[in-house]
Amino acid sequence: MTDSWVNSAERIGTDLHLELDGPGGRRAALIRALRDAVRNGRLAPGTRLPPYRSLAADLGVARNTVADAYAELVAEGWLTARQGSGTRVAERAEPLRPPARVPKTPPHARAPRHDLRQGTPDASSFPRSAWATSYRRALQQAPNQAFGPGDPAGRVELREALTEYLARARGVRTEPGRIIICSGFAHALRLLFGGRVLRGPLAVEAYGLDFHRELLTEAGARTVPLPLDEHGARVERLERERAVLLTPAHQFPTGGPLHATRRSAVIDWARARDGVILEDDYDGEFRYDRKPVGALQGLDPERVIHIGSVSKSLSPALRLGWMVLPERYVAGVLAAKGDREAWASALDQLSLADFVVSGSYDRHVRRMRQRYRGRRDRLVAALAERAPHIEVTGVAAGLHAVLRLPPGTERSAVKAATWQGIALDGLAAFRHPETDMAVRDGLVVGYATPSEHAYAAALDALCAVLPPR
Amino acid sequence: MTDSWVNSAERIGTDLHLELDGPGGRRAALIRALRDAVRNGRLAPGTRLPPYRSLAADLGVARNTVADAYAELVAEGWLTARQGSGTRVAERAEPLRPPARVPKTPPHARAPRHDLRQGTPDASSFPRSAWATSYRRALQQAPNQAFGPGDPAGRVELREALTEYLARARGVRTEPGRIIICSGFAHALRLLFGGRVLRGPLAVEAYGLDFHRELLTEAGARTVPLPLDEHGARVERLERERAVLLTPAHQFPTGGPLHATRRSAVIDWARARDGVILEDDYDGEFRYDRKPVGALQGLDPERVIHIGSVSKSLSPALRLGWMVLPERYVAGVLAAKGDREAWASALDQLSLADFVVSGSYDRHVRRMRQRYRGRRDRLVAALAERAPHIEVTGVAAGLHAVLRLPPGTERSAVKAATWQGIALDGLAAFRHPETDMAVRDGLVVGYATPSEHAYAAALDALCAVLPPR
Repeated sequence: MTDSWVNSAERIGTDLHLELDGPGGRRAALIRALRDAVRNGRLAPGTRLPPYRSLAADLGVARNTVADAYAELVAEGWLTARQGSGTRVAERAEPLRPPARVPKTPPHARAPRHDLRQGTPDASSFPRSAWATSYRRALQQAPNQAFGPGDPAGRVELREALTEYLARARGVRTEPGRIIICSGFAHALRLLFGGRVLRGPLAVEAYGLDFHRELLTEAGARTVPLPLDEHGARVERLERERAVLLTPAHQFPTGGPLHATRRSAVIDWARARDGVILEDDYDGEFRYDRKPVGALQGLDPERVIHIGSVSKSLSPALRLGWMVLPERYVAGVLAAKGDREAWASALDQLSLADFVVSGSYDRHVRRMRQRYRGRRDRLVAALAERAPHIEVTGVAAGLHAVLRLPPGTERSAVKAATWQGIALDGLAAFRHPETDMAVRDGLVVGYATPSEHAYAAALDALCAVLPPR
Repeated sequence: MTDSWVNSAERIGTDLHLELDGPGGRRAALIRALRDAVRNGRLAPGTRLPPYRSLAADLGVARNTVADAYAELVAEGWLTARQGSGTRVAERAEPLRPPARVPKTPPHARAPRHDLRQGTPDASSFPRSAWATSYRRALQQAPNQAFGPGDPAGRVELREALTEYLARARGVRTEPGRIIICSGFAHALRLLFGGRVLRGPLAVEAYGLDFHRELLTEAGARTVPLPLDEHGARVERLERERAVLLTPAHQFPTGGPLHATRRSAVIDWARARDGVILEDDYDGEFRYDRKPVGALQGLDPERVIHIGSVSKSLSPALRLGWMVLPERYVAGVLAAKGDREAWASALDQLSLADFVVSGSYDRHVRRMRQRYRGRRDRLVAALAERAPHIEVTGVAAGLHAVLRLPPGTERSAVKAATWQGIALDGLAAFRHPETDMAVRDGLVVGYATPSEHAYAAALDALCAVLPPR
């Protein structure tokens, strides 16, 4: 070992000779050279380095230059200095293992043979080129200030575009100052309840997304289930709650629109009790049999918080959504959002603004409406032919359908599907644990999820696992 | 008023005649026609509509068709139905006012005459075309699945690119499974403390961002100040705390690097006390006098959480950051993040991955390093000439400098600056309220914030408000 430093010193000397005229002066060059020598293994772990004096002499540099370089590299972890044993090359760290306890991909991202889970659009139909055009144009036209800290409310260009679009397409009555951009519906719930703008208990539909219920519970808001009937949520059951979360255009997941009388009734309730309605307009653009029912928000902009996103219409990967707020909540939500963060990428926001204003958004929605309508029709036809006893419930709308099943058959149907490599959920997965309404057996079929070419096979597989008459 | 409905009925009749053969059947056509008539004012607010029977007769449709259409439009808010007074056109809603209590732009987004606030890069130098190229390429090459629900850890392409980049540029030792993409440093703190992965009390540097302290307090983590001296944070003062937040490469805001011995000492502390070090590597790439000090994380990847972002190097508008985690925290942070959300746009993540791998990131950082170095040199030169008694403290690095002021002059200097339309902060704005270390008087000058052409004027204005000898 005693002579090892001589050899290494020679090697070091050579190496450094090639380097000493590099940028940043001799000290920097020495540090670089030593670091590289350790990194690429020319200096083996444990190798003892020459004393300052000798190396300084070898290299014709000041003793302190070497001392500084060693100290720096010790600090950086390349070298170790121990009392008595001088300076040595640190033991090479093992290459790090990937974390053990973490699944390589989260459950929802694993790919089953046939993916009929609700909630996502056909990822293969993202309008890449139209989006790229909007993005490029947005990037070219953006003011410099767009690359600085963002306005937490979101880019005004997008809020203006949405004001016009939502009025035209959804009958929403608002103005840019009442729109706040967020990263999706869940982010909106977090801001409203986590940010203490609203407090629970919150009435929700007896069937809905467990994910939203959990999120509200985490935010400290108890959820109270409203039973559903053929007219939608039974809003006359609203009692001491001050807020209610509804999917009026297309109840999720059961699939009916909120009946006209119920729409008026819940607005009357909100006015009488100083309540607020959260309108989850998750797929409002996708009504196939006729013009979509307008947003509930249009009935009373001061009583309804209208929440939408591009997650169903364009892609969940963009993380872009919006809240249309009654005046009295705007300041609170901005406070909850904080001064320093915009969350959603300002460039994506500008791109979406261009996408909407240029008409690309309408064109894409129309195209997808055709496609999904076709998917739904094929589902209905397949069932009529191969499982006529299974009824498709709900209106012709959205990205999913509910197949009503004979009582008591849902669980086994879901099991059978899983065995056949079909990913989908039964209605039970969406049922509020505390509701007293009668159990419904059914399968929630996300017909938008598969790519166009994969859909036929998914349909076949589905028909094969449905319970017999 | 009694005859108003006759006229309107006629007008309605005509309008509808043009429309009745539209898509979706007569009911839909009637709804459309009435809605349009109200929207474009052909039917004035308050106008009483004809009874079902008469309009049905006029149009040759079933009575129920008219009744349904009215009910629908009442539900949508276009019409109102009151006992006795029949069905009328709803009063036109006033165009909504923008919210009263909300400032049009948040404080930090207002533009002063000279903006020398720390924390943001020169927004005018965002590499628009290089970024657009990476974005387009990423969009073309992205797998379809990239447009579906995202992996909460972030796109693997980006985590792989960062693993390589951070090793090369910052001496970080990690692997993609230990990197989690977030939307910036604040998001990282929220996940760690809000998500209960870590708990307070947390030791922080006696001078730092109040924004971070507030955020930690909101998350329930008490912060304990560590005094600073010429070697950086006095880590030997660490006591019962289990976590410490440091800016080792370039103390923020005072500007010194953490001394080699302190770097080793804090690692030893973490190993001895099972503690964890949060490394805020906010401007690690920007060292001007020599090669940047490597990241503290390189000394012990299992004891340091390394956090970085593109907010200083590229733009805060992208909301892209990363956490490099010890193995034991990965699962917890993912749990805190939740299964359903990626926050950061997947397309921006893919774009950044391309930007890094293609070398554009390095090129941009080099370019900005040159530019900011020039800005700093100009600041130093201007002071040497016009205020030689004012010293620029800290190392030549980063996007800001601290001007040491004579004791007791800071407050008046900040005031004078404000009067001259210069936005900047004094050191007092960064001081931990509970620290016992001696007060330092100084101005924090963000020389990166102005655009290139605005900088000279900002410097002049600054020199003019500095306290005399």
